[in-house]
Amino acid sequence: MGPLSQDLTSSKPRKIPFGEYLFNKVVQCGSKSIFGVPGDYNLSLLEHLYDESVKNVGCRWIACCNELNAAYAADGYSRYTNKLGTLITTYGVGELSALNGVAGASTENVKVLHIVGVLKTNAPTCNYHHLVPQLHYANLVGPNEKLCYEMVKDRIACSAEYLDDIDTATQKVSKVIEDIYKYSKPGYIFVPADFPDKLVDVSGLYSKISLEGSIERTPHNILQSTVDRTLSWLYSSKTPGILADANVDRFGLSGQLNKLIKTTEIRNFTTIMGKSILDEMNPWYMGLYAGKNCTDMVRSKFLSCDLILHFGVEKNEVNYCAQGFPYGTGAKVIEFHQSYIRFWDTVCGDEDIIKGANFSDVLEELLSRIDTKKLDLKYDPAKFTAYKPTDLHLPNEEGVEEITQAYLQREFPKILNSGDVLVCDTGSFQFGVRDYRLPSQVKYMAQCSYLSIGTALPASLGVGIGMQDYPFAHIYDQSKLTPGYVPKLILGVGDGAAQMTVQELTTMIRYQVSINVFLWNNNGYTIERAFLGADSGYNDIMPWKWTKLFEAFGDFDGKYSSSAYVDTREQLGSKIRELGRKGGDSGSQFIEVKMGTMDYPVQLQLMLNSFKSKP
Amino acid sequence: MGPLSQDLTSSKPRKIPFGEYLFNKVVQCGSKSIFGVPGDYNLSLLEHLYDESVKNVGCRWIACCNELNAAYAADGYSRYTNKLGTLITTYGVGELSALNGVAGASTENVKVLHIVGVLKTNAPTCNYHHLVPQLHYANLVGPNEKLCYEMVKDRIACSAEYLDDIDTATQKVSKVIEDIYKYSKPGYIFVPADFPDKLVDVSGLYSKISLEGSIERTPHNILQSTVDRTLSWLYSSKTPGILADANVDRFGLSGQLNKLIKTTEIRNFTTIMGKSILDEMNPWYMGLYAGKNCTDMVRSKFLSCDLILHFGVEKNEVNYCAQGFPYGTGAKVIEFHQSYIRFWDTVCGDEDIIKGANFSDVLEELLSRIDTKKLDLKYDPAKFTAYKPTDLHLPNEEGVEEITQAYLQREFPKILNSGDVLVCDTGSFQFGVRDYRLPSQVKYMAQCSYLSIGTALPASLGVGIGMQDYPFAHIYDQSKLTPGYVPKLILGVGDGAAQMTVQELTTMIRYQVSINVFLWNNNGYTIERAFLGADSGYNDIMPWKWTKLFEAFGDFDGKYSSSAYVDTREQLGSKIRELGRKGGDSGSQFIEVKMGTMDYPVQLQLMLNSFKSKP
Repeated sequence: MGPLSQDLTSSKPRKIPFGEYLFNKVVQCGSKSIFGVPGDYNLSLLEHLYDESVKNVGCRWIACCNELNAAYAADGYSRYTNKLGTLITTYGVGELSALNGVAGASTENVKVLHIVGVLKTNAPTCNYHHLVPQLHYANLVGPNEKLCYEMVKDRIACSAEYLDDIDTATQKVSKVIEDIYKYSKPGYIFVPADFPDKLVDVSGLYSKISLEGSIERTPHNILQSTVDRTLSWLYSSKTPGILADANVDRFGLSGQLNKLIKTTEIRNFTTIMGKSILDEMNPWYMGLYAGKNCTDMVRSKFLSCDLILHFGVEKNEVNYCAQGFPYGTGAKVIEFHQSYIRFWDTVCGDEDIIKGANFSDVLEELLSRIDTKKLDLKYDPAKFTAYKPTDLHLPNEEGVEEITQAYLQREFPKILNSGDVLVCDTGSFQFGVRDYRLPSQVKYMAQCSYLSIGTALPASLGVGIGMQDYPFAHIYDQSKLTPGYVPKLILGVGDGAAQMTVQELTTMIRYQVSINVFLWNNNGYTIERAFLGADSGYNDIMPWKWTKLFEAFGDFDGKYSSSAYVDTREQLGSKIRELGRKGGDSGSQFIEVKMGTMDYPVQLQLMLNSFKSKP
Repeated sequence: MGPLSQDLTSSKPRKIPFGEYLFNKVVQCGSKSIFGVPGDYNLSLLEHLYDESVKNVGCRWIACCNELNAAYAADGYSRYTNKLGTLITTYGVGELSALNGVAGASTENVKVLHIVGVLKTNAPTCNYHHLVPQLHYANLVGPNEKLCYEMVKDRIACSAEYLDDIDTATQKVSKVIEDIYKYSKPGYIFVPADFPDKLVDVSGLYSKISLEGSIERTPHNILQSTVDRTLSWLYSSKTPGILADANVDRFGLSGQLNKLIKTTEIRNFTTIMGKSILDEMNPWYMGLYAGKNCTDMVRSKFLSCDLILHFGVEKNEVNYCAQGFPYGTGAKVIEFHQSYIRFWDTVCGDEDIIKGANFSDVLEELLSRIDTKKLDLKYDPAKFTAYKPTDLHLPNEEGVEEITQAYLQREFPKILNSGDVLVCDTGSFQFGVRDYRLPSQVKYMAQCSYLSIGTALPASLGVGIGMQDYPFAHIYDQSKLTPGYVPKLILGVGDGAAQMTVQELTTMIRYQVSINVFLWNNNGYTIERAFLGADSGYNDIMPWKWTKLFEAFGDFDGKYSSSAYVDTREQLGSKIRELGRKGGDSGSQFIEVKMGTMDYPVQLQLMLNSFKSKP
């Protein structure tokens, strides 16, 4: 959390403008940088960016090209820092443009705060407003001025306040931010354009809001009985497995979970959305499990477990495999969630949902109470073999010179060093990453569930800004990094996806975000071609001169970046080795990689097969 | 309206796939071209683009870079053609990305049909879906799969149908399209991914839906009494004025209204949203009226009218001046709307709203019944002088070499020939255009009310596609054009706005849309600087090499376009004269025009003054 500005804790006045208050509050809650686009109804708020106390706490405005991109960037900032990612837009045109970005954050449990500048409270009453869509007869009946508020409340936002009374404004701000941390979902604050200059009491800044403080504690008796039962199931299991899912990361428990694994030597897996939560270099890492949509080797190991401890469980039909996970015959399951713990016996069907318990408290208690001597692990060494991505049986490509997805699966991981950050867009490449064995403490980020193409490019801007604001935020054990190494940021994005949000490259130049961009040029929407329309024109896109973009978008003299086009394995391999030796302090690279139109990873084929085999 | 495909009217089978039906229907209703982005849930629909009957009616897929841009393009297509503009997106990620574009169409009464591919009806029941944002406890309660439908219904869409029964699907399609034409507002059809291949009865294609046929006719007695009263008020007026507003255009009545003016020689004005509806070369054209936000000359003429016939009235606080139009002392007003006629005596306050009447019928009847000999026009020649844009008193700029907004107001109109199409983005330049005297039958399009920056660039793509599909669609009197002249398309867009949606330039190259793009490079959001934050960093944007964009975005060899940078009056004047001599058959131009950061038209200053003078 950011420090409280000196100006506000000393003998200064007890009342400050609400705009100044709001910026201090969001910085205090983690958003040192704020993403957005100016518009008529937020200008009076944005002026407070230049207040002394706001500048002193290091608050930065990151000016994005459009609101949807700004929402994606705020999402990326929050995913990386695990703090609030803040977005500011304007009434109507801005708030609605950003909506899909916030919906993605909602689906994927990302802590985005969306502040919207709206109509003044003292605006003359009037039957019509140009920023409010009106239906027929609107000339006679007037518009609904809280349209967006009504749309997002209880649908996309876990918390939404349309401020209308300056005396309760600071409390409502705290309420929304607390809810965001509590549920790890987006929240909205609608700020009337006359509020930023109104005075509010500064005392709301004295109490901090944090991830740790926002989750409801588990009552002592419930905690003890839950841990008792967990230990009892665990001690009687011969082949338990730990499954790491999305919410472990969102609630900041990756370090704890890795500690549990190290302590117990329990075999462990990750879900699609949980990728990179575990230290995949731990000798007991078994791979990514996704029901029918993963490799036979991983599946057979998972199905051999008689107990699954599913931490941070997130159920949707991508991550949770449409109709629920297949578990091994006779397996028991414990789901550890931020708002419940579920004990489930898949044989007899008995289930017990403990709603008052949360996995943060339970994991902590488990770590303190577990007695490893009582564990009775009996893994069959023939089954639970060490994880090798080569189990995929990638095709033999001897003599092939073209760059293929199979080649990328073999070679691309070599670019990664411990501590690096890899952001991927939705697309065919992403499927191959599932089975990488990532170096320790590499953070991998992708929309693995909402799958909105075009998200990753602006999201990686947000990640890069987060890495500037909070270096090493994702590192829970710094002793394991090479001394002096600066983690680098890598983006992998397809050409179709990149065209959606490409202008945000300019913002990377503007704020000197160091990034290695890999642009997979495969002539359009290959992931859609894999589903349907392999040769259909609607899956084609225009060819671009990608390597000209950084220059056109502001790096006129190549001061911050270099760009290259590669179409052979030799060229790409050399780039991967070169960048693999470098850290995040060596400027930006844009590498356009020529790929085949219908070449996609075997993992995508697995998913397609599983769809086709559905009833 | 497009012709019904031969294949479907001949002896072919009576049942066809719903996808084939839907494309035939939208083409029949005006959308020869369809804008959108493919996604998992609309691929099965898009495959029917290649059905013989769909190809035979000339249906084209216009592949946009992202969904918001596609929505803007569909809006532009509809504004230009005055027919249905159709947009196809996918469930969740696509439909939500497009929302702001559809909301703009809703606010500005544009006939956009948004078709969304959604979940299969036979999808396995499952408690979670990755494209549906879920709130806390979602693992236990499951998502709301009709989220977007619920958000837009009765808020943004005048009509929305989530298809769930193939037997009623074609009727529901007709209902939505009829409503779109009836209200001139967007409508939604949500199509389950298993529907496109299901068979439906072809007979729904035999009855056409059109603008003319969709509006409810005015009952005879109401029509007669309404016209009686209108004529009575008109015959007793000495200084009547006709005011042309947005809905005259949306309901296709521009030709009729211009005929009324020519017949009666009544002095006439336009609103902000009504700009270009009138033939501004008519000798009785008095200029654009906007209360305090227009020039003294226009205002004094408008306030001298004792009767205002306000056709196509559209009330919002931009177009209708916040708290209602100021009218001349003692003036009477008749509002002619698509769903009511309002007689209003501003002196005694009496008003009478005739809800059953519409202005289409009333205007037609008025034209047939009016007896010009009974008119008793007594305009004071000193007051009602011919309209000259120079009444603005633009500053004397002798010796100035920089390009200024005042210079543009003097020189830019020279690029326009009768029949040309001018699209402007929201921004400072747009304010100057208000007082141009446009050549006859120039169509001017801008979001004059919703004012979402970035709209115009993709919208002009839609306009250009519309001009390919329906050449001369905006011309009601072709005899007045220079023989053989091909109307050209001109876009004026600020640099901040262009950065929002710039990738759609590639789609212009792809479909060979001829366009003259004028990029006003004034270092950011000058329109916001005029409001607040003249020197604030949040109003700055990154400088770009604008003239490289057409090349980077696909015109590698300059085959379709040329680009130029101009920063003196001499250079720009020469470009304007050169392009003024050319029509729309001479390729595309991108002209970056260097302007001053704080230079904006006097008309914008007028609006700012009127805001500041508010209570």
